[in-house]
Amino acid sequence: MRLFFAASALGLLAAAPAPAPSKDQTPTDIVNAAPVAAWRAIPADDLMLIDFEGGGQAIVQLAPDFAPVHVANIRAFARGGYWTGATVYRVQDNYVTQWGTNDDKKGFPAGVVAKPPREYERPVRGLAPVSLPYPDSYAARVGYWHGWPLAWDPRRGMANLTHCYGMVGVGRDLYPDTGAAGELYTVIGQATRQLDRNIALAGRVVEGMTLLSALPRGTEALGMYKEGTVARRIVRVRLASELPTHERPSFEYLDERSPSFAAYVAKRANRKDAFYEVPIGGVDLCNAPVPVRRTPAQAAR
Amino acid sequence: MRLFFAASALGLLAAAPAPAPSKDQTPTDIVNAAPVAAWRAIPADDLMLIDFEGGGQAIVQLAPDFAPVHVANIRAFARGGYWTGATVYRVQDNYVTQWGTNDDKKGFPAGVVAKPPREYERPVRGLAPVSLPYPDSYAARVGYWHGWPLAWDPRRGMANLTHCYGMVGVGRDLYPDTGAAGELYTVIGQATRQLDRNIALAGRVVEGMTLLSALPRGTEALGMYKEGTVARRIVRVRLASELPTHERPSFEYLDERSPSFAAYVAKRANRKDAFYEVPIGGVDLCNAPVPVRRTPAQAAR
Repeated sequence: MRLFFAASALGLLAAAPAPAPSKDQTPTDIVNAAPVAAWRAIPADDLMLIDFEGGGQAIVQLAPDFAPVHVANIRAFARGGYWTGATVYRVQDNYVTQWGTNDDKKGFPAGVVAKPPREYERPVRGLAPVSLPYPDSYAARVGYWHGWPLAWDPRRGMANLTHCYGMVGVGRDLYPDTGAAGELYTVIGQATRQLDRNIALAGRVVEGMTLLSALPRGTEALGMYKEGTVARRIVRVRLASELPTHERPSFEYLDERSPSFAAYVAKRANRKDAFYEVPIGGVDLCNAPVPVRRTPAQAAR
Repeated sequence: MRLFFAASALGLLAAAPAPAPSKDQTPTDIVNAAPVAAWRAIPADDLMLIDFEGGGQAIVQLAPDFAPVHVANIRAFARGGYWTGATVYRVQDNYVTQWGTNDDKKGFPAGVVAKPPREYERPVRGLAPVSLPYPDSYAARVGYWHGWPLAWDPRRGMANLTHCYGMVGVGRDLYPDTGAAGELYTVIGQATRQLDRNIALAGRVVEGMTLLSALPRGTEALGMYKEGTVARRIVRVRLASELPTHERPSFEYLDERSPSFAAYVAKRANRKDAFYEVPIGGVDLCNAPVPVRRTPAQAAR
């Protein structure tokens, strides 16, 4: 099996077999047919709910395994009410949407580490990621680990999250500043992989992405909004773990070690369903995003 | 020089030397410093102006070298007033924005070929494209030719335009339909390279992209707008060549065989300006788009 040699070499393929994909299946069909055993729950403490004025809500999954101090800061900012009244103030076409207070002088809530360490990469040792078997333009190896898109360099022994569509990073000024995480951004166009290993990625948008991607582009330098322009204002930010259990949103991701995931990526690389005449024979990491969904019980509500 | 071995092997590097890029230069700095000799004019007959209700204008550069019959159709649709009153009717997040009449029964203007040939790729022979020296996830080789992003397979001897951000393609139904070009789309997220060689690309947006990318996403299947929703209506479409000479928009692209272009791509792959700590060491085709601009005389107006 050409796909996911790392997984098969390590004997990690899940026991429950997925149905063999038929020619006409789409990647979405494969995801929808994945057995319950192929899905992994996302902890409630890793889900951040951003409520916007007017009723929209974006939900971000945090990545404590990659940027633990920045993620701890994000939780402290959320619990401390730091973002109430904050706004989206930068939307640069084919690049990023950025939000926060945009105010250097606003005091941080208790528990925020003002100058976090440089959490741009971490040792790959112990992760055993699943490889994507197609060439990448930026890194020696790319693939997935615990539902995250990952790049790594076996020679250096280091791994990093990658700047794919919807990934959430921490705005910063110039080195040695890494950003405290009061200002966050998400990728809204072609993957900005040149930022990999240069800035802390701390999560990804798992619901409500269009509240951030479909905004008017800023007219000032770097896509900043003209002063006084507010396209979207934040009314509150909470962690799912702060809500009563029955009110918590509940999400899961498709395990990269499952046969369903392997079939999904193979199909992303080789579309044969009705529309396609020529399976293109490859896919890049950011064009084969890990499927994430509401748990079926919530989706059915 | 590691960059652009195809160009240097063929002795195509332009005679006028570009200034050596300094550590602090950004890719944009390099483009702005490129000498006049590095720019190539885009013919007025290849520029299509789409005027939207309310005053916005998007400008598309057509690609007659790749989809000659589809491009001839586009010109006939424009000259015949086919798109007056047409709308944007599909905006699928991280995928495409599509516009046209969305009406199978509307008669075509004179000169339109109802069933164009399958212009999804063409022989690479005679093109001598400049290679991008980084791996691509989809194609054996990628690079640039006459200002266009290109993929090719030396073994098969075929080349195709690639689905990068802002590229314009021809909507179609199922095979053997190729679309007559009455319905067009542009890529608004991560490059949809799985569509390469499966659909006719006929151009790219060179100005006014945000009029198509920043729209509300459609709420129906495939990002279709709910019937009756009109986010943007077209009032007229013209070719620049139909305008009096002094009213024509005038664009140029940075020649991929110029030292400035080589320096631009090298810098996209190895950012060293103030913000960056680690040059990432690579870039994908769609993240190193060919610089296109208004000719300086027009930009200064």
